[in-house]
Amino acid sequence: RSDIDCITSRNLVRLPGLIDIHVHVREPGAVHKEDWTTCTAAALAGGVTMICAMPNTNPPVTNPANFEIALKAASGGARCDFALYVGAGVDNASILPDIGDKAFALKMYLNETFTSLRLDSTEVWMEHFKNWPRDLPIAVHAEERTLAAVLFLAGIFERHVHVCHLARKEEILIVRAAKERGMNVTCEVCPHHLFLCSDDIDSLGEGVAQVRPRLCRKQDQDALWENINIIDCFATDHAPHTWDEKCSPKPPPGFPGLETMLPLLLTAVHDGRLTIEDVVLRLYTNPRKIFGLPEQPDTYVEVDIDQRWVIPHAMPFSKCKWTPFKGMKVFGSVRKVVLRGSVVYIDGKVLADPGFGHNVFSSKRH
Amino acid sequence: RSDIDCITSRNLVRLPGLIDIHVHVREPGAVHKEDWTTCTAAALAGGVTMICAMPNTNPPVTNPANFEIALKAASGGARCDFALYVGAGVDNASILPDIGDKAFALKMYLNETFTSLRLDSTEVWMEHFKNWPRDLPIAVHAEERTLAAVLFLAGIFERHVHVCHLARKEEILIVRAAKERGMNVTCEVCPHHLFLCSDDIDSLGEGVAQVRPRLCRKQDQDALWENINIIDCFATDHAPHTWDEKCSPKPPPGFPGLETMLPLLLTAVHDGRLTIEDVVLRLYTNPRKIFGLPEQPDTYVEVDIDQRWVIPHAMPFSKCKWTPFKGMKVFGSVRKVVLRGSVVYIDGKVLADPGFGHNVFSSKRH
Ligand SMILES: [Zn+2]
Ligand SMILES: [Zn+2]
Ligand SMILES: [Zn+2]
Ligand SMILES: [Zn+2]
Ligand SMILES: [Zn+2]
Ligand SMILES: [Zn+2]
Ligand SMILES: [Zn+2]
Ligand SMILES: [Zn+2]
Repeated sequence: RSDIDCITSRNLVRLPGLIDIHVHVREPGAVHKEDWTTCTAAALAGGVTMICAMPNTNPPVTNPANFEIALKAASGGARCDFALYVGAGVDNASILPDIGDKAFALKMYLNETFTSLRLDSTEVWMEHFKNWPRDLPIAVHAEERTLAAVLFLAGIFERHVHVCHLARKEEILIVRAAKERGMNVTCEVCPHHLFLCSDDIDSLGEGVAQVRPRLCRKQDQDALWENINIIDCFATDHAPHTWDEKCSPKPPPGFPGLETMLPLLLTAVHDGRLTIEDVVLRLYTNPRKIFGLPEQPDTYVEVDIDQRWVIPHAMPFSKCKWTPFKGMKVFGSVRKVVLRGSVVYIDGKVLADPGFGHNVFSSKRH
Repeated sequence: RSDIDCITSRNLVRLPGLIDIHVHVREPGAVHKEDWTTCTAAALAGGVTMICAMPNTNPPVTNPANFEIALKAASGGARCDFALYVGAGVDNASILPDIGDKAFALKMYLNETFTSLRLDSTEVWMEHFKNWPRDLPIAVHAEERTLAAVLFLAGIFERHVHVCHLARKEEILIVRAAKERGMNVTCEVCPHHLFLCSDDIDSLGEGVAQVRPRLCRKQDQDALWENINIIDCFATDHAPHTWDEKCSPKPPPGFPGLETMLPLLLTAVHDGRLTIEDVVLRLYTNPRKIFGLPEQPDTYVEVDIDQRWVIPHAMPFSKCKWTPFKGMKVFGSVRKVVLRGSVVYIDGKVLADPGFGHNVFSSKRH
C-alpha cells in the first residue's frame, strides 16, 4: 500500500464500540484535571464507548458510601457507558464484597503510594484474595518482582488476576511463564509503553515524561511488541494532569491517552505491526470476556484507517490540554461513533449529552 | 521441674554435632571482624561442628578463582568442618555451575545491596534458576513480597528453594501456604528473631540493633513460635561486626550468634517451648537432608541442659566481642565437643587447631 494511496483514498472501516478498561476520570476530587463530561467526550472522540474508572479519586472508592458518591458523579456526567472499580485498602477487605456485583473489578495498588490505597504487606493482599468474591475480577498495579509476588498469591488462592499496564521485559516474561503453566492470568499494555520509551524522556522533559510504570528501556518496549500474543488487552491508563502540574517541581505521574490510543494502534496496523483484528480483540472481545461486560447494542465506530494526520500539542476534549504524543505522524481517524443506536460523535463533534452514559453494572451481573 | 533441681543437678545430654547453615566468616576481606580460626572456635564452643560460609566476602565467592581463594582461607583456618556457598551475581549465571558440586548451595541476595551480589531484576533471577544444576540447592535472602516473588519463580522452574532467616508473620504465612500446596520449599529461622523483637531496640540501641531482616514486631515473633512446625532449620546468620562499627554513625547490620544459639534454644526447651528433638531436627537432621550433607563420623556434643548462667557482654571466642543477648538468663551449656573422634572442645577450651576442619564437599557430592 503506497502513501499516495493512503492520502487520496477514504478507507472506512467499522469497528465495535471500544472498551477502555483503565481510565482515571479525576472526578470526584480533581475536576480541574478532568471530569466525567470531558473524560467521556475524549473517550467518544477516541472511538471508546465504555470506560472503566479507577478508584483513586478523592474520596477514594473504598467503601459503599464512597461508591455511591462516585456513581452519582459518573451518572450525572458520563456521555459514554461506564463501570467503576473499587479500591483495596488496608482495612476494607471485609466490606468490599457487598458492592462487588456493582463494581467492574477490585483494584489493588501494590507498588506506589496512593494514600489509603497503598498495600505494603502481603498479609493485606491475602485478606483481599480471601474476601473478594471468587467469580469477580482483581486487577493489580504490580511492577517487576511485585508482579511475580502477586501471581504467587493468585496461584495459592487459585484465582484469576488481571495485570495492569505491563511495561517491562521481565514482566512479560513472568506473565508468559505463568500462562505457559496454565495459570489464569491476563494483562493489558498501554499505548505509551508501546509507542514511547526512555529514549523519549529528553525530548518530553523529565517531569512531563513521569508516568507509572515509567517509560522503560528500548529493549523493554521491543519485548512488548515481540510478545504481543501474550497481551490480552490494550488500555490507555488515561491519567490527565494539567500542563502546569506536569511542569511543576513535583510533576505528578500520568499521561492522557483516550483521544490518541486508536490512531496510534491504527498506525501500527498501517505499518503492518498489528492487524485490525488484533486491535478489536484487545479493545473489545477480550475486555468483554475477561470482565464479563454486557453487550452495548447497536453500537459501533467508523474509522478512516488511511487518513494521515499529525498529533497536535493537545487533543480537543480532555481538559488537560497536552499530550505526550505531540508531533507523531499517525494514520487513522474516528469519523463517527454510534452508541445504543444514537450518533454520539461525528466529524469532530461530540453529540451525546452528559448523563447519556449508563452504568453497565446497574443491574446485578449474575 | 523446679529451679532448685536445675541448679543442683548435672543433666548431661549427648547431641549430634550441630550444623549451622548460615555463617558470615568475614575472611577474606574483613578479618578485623572475624576470621576462620576465631569463627570456628566460636562454632565449637557453641556445639556446632560444621558451618556453611556465606559468599559475601571480599572478594566475593562469585567465580571459580574466588572460590579457590575462599577455600584456601577456610582450609588453613578452620577448626571445625565447613562448606562454602557461592553467590549469584548479575553476570555469573553461566559460570557457576562448574563449581556447583564443590559448593554448599547458590545464595541469591534479593533484597539489600551487597555490592556485586545485588540482584534487582527478576530477569537475572531467572537466569540463575535456568543455569544452576537442578539437583543442587538455592538459598535466598528474600523478605516480604520478595519471598512470594521468588517462590513464584521456584514454581515456574519446578525446583527447590531454601528461604534464609524467615522473620515476619507474612513470610511464615507465605511459606506455610506454599508447603500446603505441596511446593518444595524449606526455611530457616535465626535465634535473634525468635528471642528478640522490635521492643528490644531501645535497650540495645538503634545502631547496635541493626540486622537484616530487622528485628520485627512482637506479633511477627509470636507468629514464628506459633508456626514452629513450618520451620525446617535453625541457623545463626552469625554476622560479626566490631563494637566500634556497631556504634558508628553508619552501623552495619548483623549480630554474632554462634556461641549463644544452643543455650537460647535449650532455654526454650527448659521452658517447654521446644523439645530436644525439635532442636536436633532443625540443627542436624534437616540441614543434612535438605543440603545433602555427609555424615561426620564419631562426632557429638555433650551439653549440661540444666546449667543456668547469664550471657555476658561478650562471648569468649568470636573476635567481635559483643552480643545482642547480653544479660539474658539461659539454661544449658556445652561441656564437650568431639569431632571425628577427637575432643575439639572441653570445659571452655578449644583444642582443635586451625586447619583441623575439613571441606565436606572436597570430593564430588554425587
Ligand atoms: Zn496506507
Ligand atoms: Zn497503575
Ligand atoms: Zn492507572
Ligand atoms: Zn440511562
Ligand atoms: Zn530445670
Ligand atoms: Zn541475608
Ligand atoms: Zn546472612
Ligand atoms: Zn583435613
